[in-house]
Amino acid sequence: MEFRNIDRVPMEPVPMEGAKGTTMAMMVGREDGAPNFSLRHVRVEGGGHTPRHSHDYEHEVVVLEGAGTVLLEGDEHPIRPGDVLLVPPGEEHQFKASAEGLRFLCLVPVSRNCGEPTPGS
Amino acid sequence: MEFRNIDRVPMEPVPMEGAKGTTMAMMVGREDGAPNFSLRHVRVEGGGHTPRHSHDYEHEVVVLEGAGTVLLEGDEHPIRPGDVLLVPPGEEHQFKASAEGLRFLCLVPVSRNCGEPTPGS
Repeated sequence: MEFRNIDRVPMEPVPMEGAKGTTMAMMVGREDGAPNFSLRHVRVEGGGHTPRHSHDYEHEVVVLEGAGTVLLEGDEHPIRPGDVLLVPPGEEHQFKASAEGLRFLCLVPVSRNCGEPTPGS
Repeated sequence: MEFRNIDRVPMEPVPMEGAKGTTMAMMVGREDGAPNFSLRHVRVEGGGHTPRHSHDYEHEVVVLEGAGTVLLEGDEHPIRPGDVLLVPPGEEHQFKASAEGLRFLCLVPVSRNCGEPTPGS
């Protein structure tokens, strides 16, 4: 694959219900031949948020820039650049941006349920 | 799991033959219950390098800071912050730091060969 720089791959709106001011770019995914996991770049504008939801696959997240909170284990926790977290399968979660916005990496497995493609991988 | 910040998790020397000036911290791994992939933070000091090697599992890499090169497909390519790359299974690779050093995320699957733990996951 070509090298991609996170600042050069255009971000697309996340069309999911419950998302506000959220855009995403696939950096490495199934279509690139990623064997096991996909790496996405997510931006949430000031006051925006990702959907509040849960699913049967995990996220691993690395906060790159900005500030906000993550809902996890029923509580909202502040997050800041450099924070790394595992959102386990089945755990309800939501990322909210403070006024300055939030930018993070969000990884998912490429498949679930013995081979079914993971949405957004 | 607790939230971990990349600047607060101590880095340990990488004891592999062929590594020079390379330290690593596990940010999310098998021991944290990561179901599919492990997220490691790697630092290579100025003039240092990772081992030149290949293995039967992939890397996904995100350059965080500094400058250097990656050997991939037989050539050395310059890398810079924000670059994201997939090192496919079986591909020989090596990261080298320029004088200022290099810092990156390096992800691996937690298992290979139908369940055998991946080294360093």
